[in-house]
Amino acid sequence: MILGIDIGGANTKITEMKSDGTYKIHHIYFPMWRNNKELTNLLAKYNHKDITKIALVMTAELADSYETKKEGVIDILNSVKNAFPNKEIFIFDVDGNFLTPSEAVKQHIKVSASNWTATAEFVKNNICPNDNCILIDMGSTTTDIIPIVNGKIVAQKTDLDRLINNELLYVGTLRTPISFLSNTVEYKCKNENTTINVSSEYFAITGDINIIMDKITTNDYTCDTPDGAPTNKQNCKIRLSKVLCGDLEQIGEEEINEVAKQFYAKLLNLIKSNVDKVATKYNINNIVITGLGEPILIDALRQEYNIISIKEGYNKDVSLATPSFAVAELLNKTKR
Amino acid sequence: MILGIDIGGANTKITEMKSDGTYKIHHIYFPMWRNNKELTNLLAKYNHKDITKIALVMTAELADSYETKKEGVIDILNSVKNAFPNKEIFIFDVDGNFLTPSEAVKQHIKVSASNWTATAEFVKNNICPNDNCILIDMGSTTTDIIPIVNGKIVAQKTDLDRLINNELLYVGTLRTPISFLSNTVEYKCKNENTTINVSSEYFAITGDINIIMDKITTNDYTCDTPDGAPTNKQNCKIRLSKVLCGDLEQIGEEEINEVAKQFYAKLLNLIKSNVDKVATKYNINNIVITGLGEPILIDALRQEYNIISIKEGYNKDVSLATPSFAVAELLNKTKR
Repeated sequence: MILGIDIGGANTKITEMKSDGTYKIHHIYFPMWRNNKELTNLLAKYNHKDITKIALVMTAELADSYETKKEGVIDILNSVKNAFPNKEIFIFDVDGNFLTPSEAVKQHIKVSASNWTATAEFVKNNICPNDNCILIDMGSTTTDIIPIVNGKIVAQKTDLDRLINNELLYVGTLRTPISFLSNTVEYKCKNENTTINVSSEYFAITGDINIIMDKITTNDYTCDTPDGAPTNKQNCKIRLSKVLCGDLEQIGEEEINEVAKQFYAKLLNLIKSNVDKVATKYNINNIVITGLGEPILIDALRQEYNIISIKEGYNKDVSLATPSFAVAELLNKTKR
Repeated sequence: MILGIDIGGANTKITEMKSDGTYKIHHIYFPMWRNNKELTNLLAKYNHKDITKIALVMTAELADSYETKKEGVIDILNSVKNAFPNKEIFIFDVDGNFLTPSEAVKQHIKVSASNWTATAEFVKNNICPNDNCILIDMGSTTTDIIPIVNGKIVAQKTDLDRLINNELLYVGTLRTPISFLSNTVEYKCKNENTTINVSSEYFAITGDINIIMDKITTNDYTCDTPDGAPTNKQNCKIRLSKVLCGDLEQIGEEEINEVAKQFYAKLLNLIKSNVDKVATKYNINNIVITGLGEPILIDALRQEYNIISIKEGYNKDVSLATPSFAVAELLNKTKR
């Protein structure tokens, strides 16, 4: 059995894949910026005796627990080695190669934030129509926009270069602070719409908007809520009302729904404007979508693009954990 | 002796004022969203036997520890009463009156976020030239923009109404996430400037920018840093480089300074555009400034406005804790 592991800043995902291709997927909310010392213990729970190889991708090396990516890569690799002392470990890099741990330390920039490359290789080999598509993975925290052109992944390699080229958009389905979407909002005051300032405090996140707009379920809202209160719609509205420095009594249900709609529209615009730039650059109309944000990507893009959903083609589990699934599948088919 | 207390979301400030007007000021970083249960213990340390009256203002009722403002006001008042069981307590309201605790509970909306009113009353009575000025208090978290017209404070009363009228701007000297200032930045890439996406993660705050730009000292950076690392310039640059998903090795000192300059310019623009709207509405050119952000307000406004600084007129201590100083001074001069 191969274990595909994707260690992100906020979530770790693990795919147990048998040699016949059957699989089981685990989603674990595990904030690395405060838990990184516990990573070995977490992973060791999944060290069963029938596992032969570990296929690893990561993004958590960017977490605040580390000053540099190198420090992060080394610490994460040590945790994985300690959790699986008797197994072969392979780390997928941004060029599509599997490296040994010692190779990975030497090439820490290449294994840094390579989880999206695993997904891209998998989509390129199995899904991409006519070898040309844009793969979009909208997770809890970020949205990866990955052009595949003539059967080649032409995306930039580092997060910095991906930000520069509209290929990494730092908005996600759950964890993006509402105030990142806009520092103003239209608000109905004495029957007139006025543009008003909003709070920059960490009061509400995209998870709250997406619950209010019925785009995700309360079970999908797997991260901490900003106020520690439950994920139900009423509490999401309470959190959103704080972004306007009000409470729900003061603002009212109807108006808070209007505010949610506006922030949702800003989220869709941000996605579409970035996808448009990449699509125009490569003249591509086919979009493969995956991740918790699939319904949001559909809202943002269905009018202008041909959309292929991994959730529909496979299932929700694979869509929510594509990099861990993909890296296991890629190692399964690799000779290394 | 009168104790002036200002309980904010992140900081509590206490002014001990003797009847002859001499005073001593205490600044305490005390995040109410996680410490509210400890407030009584904190305040009790300042309960000396020669204190006769407590003058109180608050904004912490908006903190995430409370679902509604009413709940917050009641809990804070209980903490104050428990800390000073044998003293007279008066709460300053947004209309400029001192209320008893039982009156304050009944009128919780009026005592909610009234700290700026205390500062405004004080400025109106002691500083405002020709009874017309705009008072601007830039603290760690927010900027209050308070018009005083013909000797009357004409600002809106609730935070929501103040957001609507450009009188509350949710950017401060320390705690504002950089990504609130803008979700893109110009970045020099292959000698060309490109507009690039930035991370929405809580990687860096205005305190980091203001340290890099030499607008505050490392001692002024009194809140938690996003990564828990020190407040020195090097660590501020490390934090800022993470906003671009890079590290300082990758981006370089020179370019990170450029990025800091840009975010600082965005901060100045945000302040100026809001002040301009209020100044135009009331046709006022005199600005009274106070708070940790005085140097930033000067950068933003000196070209177009006549500026009077409380730090220069009094001292830095008063400038950093004006509401607690003002509410003590107001109670000192009140018959109640």
